[in-house]
Amino acid sequence: MSDPLPVITAFRWVPDFARGVVRDMRVRWALEEVGQPYQVRLVDGISVKAAEHRCLQPFGQVPTYEQDGFTMFESGAILLHIARTRTGLLPDDPAQAAAAEQWVFAAMTSVEPAIQDLGLVNIFEADQPWAEARRPISEARVRSRLADLSQRLGDQPYLEGLFTAGDLMMVCVLRGLTGTSLLADYPTLEAYVARCQARPAFRRALAAHLADFDTTPPLAA
Amino acid sequence: MSDPLPVITAFRWVPDFARGVVRDMRVRWALEEVGQPYQVRLVDGISVKAAEHRCLQPFGQVPTYEQDGFTMFESGAILLHIARTRTGLLPDDPAQAAAAEQWVFAAMTSVEPAIQDLGLVNIFEADQPWAEARRPISEARVRSRLADLSQRLGDQPYLEGLFTAGDLMMVCVLRGLTGTSLLADYPTLEAYVARCQARPAFRRALAAHLADFDTTPPLAA
Repeated sequence: MSDPLPVITAFRWVPDFARGVVRDMRVRWALEEVGQPYQVRLVDGISVKAAEHRCLQPFGQVPTYEQDGFTMFESGAILLHIARTRTGLLPDDPAQAAAAEQWVFAAMTSVEPAIQDLGLVNIFEADQPWAEARRPISEARVRSRLADLSQRLGDQPYLEGLFTAGDLMMVCVLRGLTGTSLLADYPTLEAYVARCQARPAFRRALAAHLADFDTTPPLAA
Repeated sequence: MSDPLPVITAFRWVPDFARGVVRDMRVRWALEEVGQPYQVRLVDGISVKAAEHRCLQPFGQVPTYEQDGFTMFESGAILLHIARTRTGLLPDDPAQAAAAEQWVFAAMTSVEPAIQDLGLVNIFEADQPWAEARRPISEARVRSRLADLSQRLGDQPYLEGLFTAGDLMMVCVLRGLTGTSLLADYPTLEAYVARCQARPAFRRALAAHLADFDTTPPLAA
C-alpha cells in the first residue's frame, strides 16, 4: 500500500492581483518538480481564520501541508521538506544543498520584503495619501536588490548552475513584481524568470493553481 | 589537526538602534548554543559593498559564514546549516526537525516583515510626513502577528516544547520590537523572550556582539 497523498491548502477565491502568486503556488511547483501527486483542500477567507485551520497554521494563512499525520506550514519550510525528502530540487552534496537553501532564504528574506513593501504602496495602501510619495522610495529598494541579484546571476542559467529549490523560490518572489514594469529593466532577471517559468512543472502547477479558483467572490459572511 | 574555526562577518560600527539586532547576532547565538568557537572578521559600511565582500554576500550585507573553503550567506540558512551539522538546535527526529525549521521561516517570513515595516515607520521613514499616519496601520499588522503567536505558544516554554533553532530565530525577530512598547501587551511573548534571553549562550553571544562595535562611527569616506 502506498503512502497517502500529501494534502495542501489553497484559497478558493482571491482577487485578480493575487492569482498566480498565492503561496500554495510555491508548494504546487515543488511537488510537480519532484513528481509527487497531491490533493488540495480549498479554504476561504473565513475558514482560514477559524480555530480548526489555525491548528495547522497559527497565522491563518495558506498553504499548509499534511501527509500521513505529519503537518507543517510556511511555504519555505514546506519547500525544503519536499526538497529534502524527494529527488530533484536539492543537490546530493551537503555543501551544494546548503548553497541552494541559502537562495531560498535570500529570496524570502532579502528580496521579498522589498517587493512586499512595493505591494503595500501599489495595492494595499494605494488609496492612502502617501502612496505616490512613497513609491519611488520603495521602488529604489526593490531596484537595489534586483541589481545585486542580476549581477550575481550573470550569465548562469540558474543561481547555482543547476535548477534548485532556491531558483523556485526566487522566481516565485520575483513574480510578485507582476503588474509593475521593474523587471523589464533587468533583462538578465527577466530571462531567468522566463527560463524557470518555461519548465513543465511550473506550467502544470500554475494551471492547477489557477483552475482551483472560483470565478466569483464568496458572499460576505 | 582540528578543523579551522568558522569565520563570520559583522559590522565594526552601527547606530545605537541596531546594536543587539544586527543579524550576525543570530549566528553568534547559534554557534554558542552548539558550543562551536568562531572568529569574527569586522567589516564597515564601505567594505561590505565592495566586490570582495559581494563574492561572499551578493547583497552587501552581514553576516557571512566561512569554514574550510565552504562559504554561505543569509542568517536563516546559516542557522539551519549550523543546526543540522551540530547538536543542540534541532531534534534528531526528522518530523520534529521539520517542525522546528518551520518556525525559522515563520519568524523570518510571517512575523519579521511586519516588524520591519514598523522599523520603516519609526526609524528609516520617521522624518517623512506620513510617519504618524502610517504608524497605527503598521502597528496593527504587528499586533495581529503577535496575538497569533502568543495564542499558539500558550503555556509552552518554547514553540515546539524544547528550545530549537525556531525559538532562536523567533526571539531574534521579536527583539526587533525593542524601543517600542508593543511586546509588553503580550505577556506570554514577553516572558518567552525573557526565557530565551536568559540562556547562557544568548548572553555570551550578545556580549561578544556588543563588544565588537567601535564606540565612535567611522570617518566618512
